[in-house]
Parts: sequence; C-alpha cells; structure tokens
Amino acid sequence: MKLSRYKRSSELSYTLGATLVYELLKTHPELIRRVFLRPNIPHGADLDSLLSQLRDQNIEILESAKAFNVLDAKGSCLLIAEFTKPSSQLNPAAPHLVLINPSDAGNLGTIMRSAAAFGFTNLAIITPAVDPYQPKTIRASMGAIFHLNLQEFTSYDEYLASYGQNRACYAFMLDNHAIQLPDLTLNNQNFALIFGNEASGLPSNFATKATPVYIPQSSNVDSLNLSVATSIALYQFHQK
Amino acid sequence: MKLSRYKRSSELSYTLGATLVYELLKTHPELIRRVFLRPNIPHGADLDSLLSQLRDQNIEILESAKAFNVLDAKGSCLLIAEFTKPSSQLNPAAPHLVLINPSDAGNLGTIMRSAAAFGFTNLAIITPAVDPYQPKTIRASMGAIFHLNLQEFTSYDEYLASYGQNRACYAFMLDNHAIQLPDLTLNNQNFALIFGNEASGLPSNFATKATPVYIPQSSNVDSLNLSVATSIALYQFHQK
Repeated sequence: MKLSRYKRSSELSYTLGATLVYELLKTHPELIRRVFLRPNIPHGADLDSLLSQLRDQNIEILESAKAFNVLDAKGSCLLIAEFTKPSSQLNPAAPHLVLINPSDAGNLGTIMRSAAAFGFTNLAIITPAVDPYQPKTIRASMGAIFHLNLQEFTSYDEYLASYGQNRACYAFMLDNHAIQLPDLTLNNQNFALIFGNEASGLPSNFATKATPVYIPQSSNVDSLNLSVATSIALYQFHQK
Repeated sequence: MKLSRYKRSSELSYTLGATLVYELLKTHPELIRRVFLRPNIPHGADLDSLLSQLRDQNIEILESAKAFNVLDAKGSCLLIAEFTKPSSQLNPAAPHLVLINPSDAGNLGTIMRSAAAFGFTNLAIITPAVDPYQPKTIRASMGAIFHLNLQEFTSYDEYLASYGQNRACYAFMLDNHAIQLPDLTLNNQNFALIFGNEASGLPSNFATKATPVYIPQSSNVDSLNLSVATSIALYQFHQK
C-alpha cells in the first residue's frame, strides 16, 4: 500500500477522525479515495453506521495499522479519509472573504468555521499563506472547509481582476479614520471583507484600494486575534 | 540562583519576551520580582529603553543563560520577567465575563485579549479550568491579562453567592428557543455573560439559572470556536 505523510504539493490530503470523515462524506463523497480504519478497535453503533454509509458509496475501507503510524503517529483517531483536494472557484455573485497571507493553520481553520457559520461560503486566500488543505487546518475548521468554495490568488490585484468588478471592498485596519464597523451601511450585497496577516495586518496603502473599516476597541490592546476580528466582521455583516 | 520551571502551585509566574515584560511593567511594576536578560545579545534602542525603565523601578536585571534554558528552552526571547501572581477580586459594580471550565490556554488567552479590547475587565473563572497564569495563557493574551481583574470560583453557585445579586445573567447556549443575541435589549448595566467549556458548552440546566442567549448561525456547523463566540458577545454587548 503506497502511503506517505501529507505534502502541500500532493493532490491528496487526509482528514482525521470519524466526525470529519462524516462531514466529508456528507458534503463531497466523490472526493474520497479510500478510508483507513484502525485495526482491532471496538465498534460502536455510530462507527458501524458510518462504515455502512461509506460502503453504500462504494468507498474502499482498509484496516491498516501503517496508515495510522504514518498519518496520526501521536493521535488516537479511529478513521482517516484520503481525499482529492478539490479545485473550486468563487461564486462571483456572492459576498467574499479575502485573507491576505494568513500564516497560522489554527486561525485559518477557525475562520473557516466562522465563515460557514455566518453563511460566507466563498473564501479567497492571497498567497504566500498557510496551506488550507493541511490536516491541521481541516481539523481546526471542524470540517467547515468542506462547505466552502476556496480559491488561491498570488496577489490582491489578481483577485480584483477576476472578481473586483462592481464589488464593494472593505479593508479591516487599525486606522482611527476608518468607518467604525457598527456604523457601516451596506448598500451592495456584492462585497468583500479583507483581512491582513496575523502579525502585520494590512499595509496602510490598502486604505486607497478599499474602504477602511475599524472594529472599535480599547487602546489597552494592540489588536484583536485575527480569527476573532474576522469572525466579528462576519457576524456583523451577517446581521446587516 | 534558585529557578524552576513554572508550576501552577507556585506563587510566581513568568512572562516571556520584551513586549509582555513591557506590558507588565506598565500595568503592575510592583509584581515584578526580577528580570532575566539573555546574555551576549545585541541591544537595540527599544531594549535599552526598556532596561532603563526597569532599572528606574529598582528591578533587578540578571544576565542568565540558565534562566532561558529552564524557562524558554525552545524559544528565542530576549527577556523574561519573574512576577508574583496577583490575587484580585472582581469589581461588583461592573459587567462580568464568566467562563465555566475553560480548558485551552490559547482560547483563554485570546478571550482575555478580546475582553480587554471591549472593556470587560472583570473575568470569573469556574474551576476546574486551565491555569490563567501559565506562561502560554499569558502569551496568548498578548499581555491583556495584566489589564483584568481575575477571580476563580469552585462553582457557578459560589460565583453567584458573591456577585449574583441584582445581576442579569446571560447564558450562551445552542438553544433555538433562546433570545437571539442581536435582539437582546440590555436594561441592566450590571450583567454577566456566561460561557461553557470548549467541548461540552453549558449544561442544559443553565437555561433555568440564567437567560439563555443564542448567536444565530448556520446548521452547517456544530458550533463556533469558544474564543470566537465569546468575543462576538463581548463586541455586541460593548455596542449595546
């Protein structure tokens, strides 16, 4: 059985644990190549039901200690799905979330979870960025990644060239002259929310490329955590 | 020089890195016992200015390779402050954030950062819970912990006995019958926002102990990340 640790360059990735395998099966059964089952484990009713649903889709299930040694050396999950990374495109008629150079897998996964929760299912990632399909990001997303259209761009300008037309773009920045988020009036359902990197935020020249928006906060802190700031914006725009 | 790895039972803790040492010096210089400086490093103007401010407060600065071996074995920070953990009490006249059994240091630190950002400076923690003063929590808080009054309780009832009188208590739960957060009208500035554990949330009997509140979200996700849900609530109550 050919099997190797996850690599960014690979066309395949892995999702670990029964919950995430179930989420993938529910949303994209066609992507699953095979499922590994930890040998010699007691089966509960939930696991048996999931295995039966996988078999109904003609998905191969392999009992393999090796798969868990290679893919989950420190963990204790029961199931791993090997799947083909999808190549999706953004919906041009929907609101977009645009992340510029996100660098932390946990943050990116948490943002995906919030995006799915608030109905933002189109996520643009400007590279260089952390790998959205690495197992750690998928785990942090709690499977929300499988509910999203995801598209990578090498620059913000490349994103704009494809999807910028007639789009209201909001750049979240620590700029006191920016519109305060609660005061923002939304006149165009075709919009993009843009967030910078965890450490550096958005460069100040973004104020000329998009409408700057500020989440009102105390001067006692430097900034909010990126996944927190993004989620607050998604929540607030979901209300508007 | 006597020095040991951080222990929960110790009266002392450590904050790693110049930024956090500066935050501690700004807010609670009286807590700092001594500061360790990594030997043989080039000094920039920022570091020299911080060292000079520490000396102005008569704080001992020790060049010690051992301190960094013991306290920051894998890191590369330049400064470590050893400080006495404060024992603070909540302000009875202020809004409170109440976390029931938080278990993740990163989440707790991120929540502290949001709490300080939105002016919620009184945090009750119901034990068992992750240690708020372990260096990992402090780092995740980006120093926001030093802006908060922090008090631990062994149960929610113990918290209520001390601070519950005439307080409007809101329990954040995945309960569709709950008041939706955007619809909530705030009639009492003396309130508490209550959140459960990362994995289990609040037990359903909390609906009888406090007013249940729900953050509207898609059924595509099980829940929001705890630090995200808490931060959205803090943001929204800060607006109200």
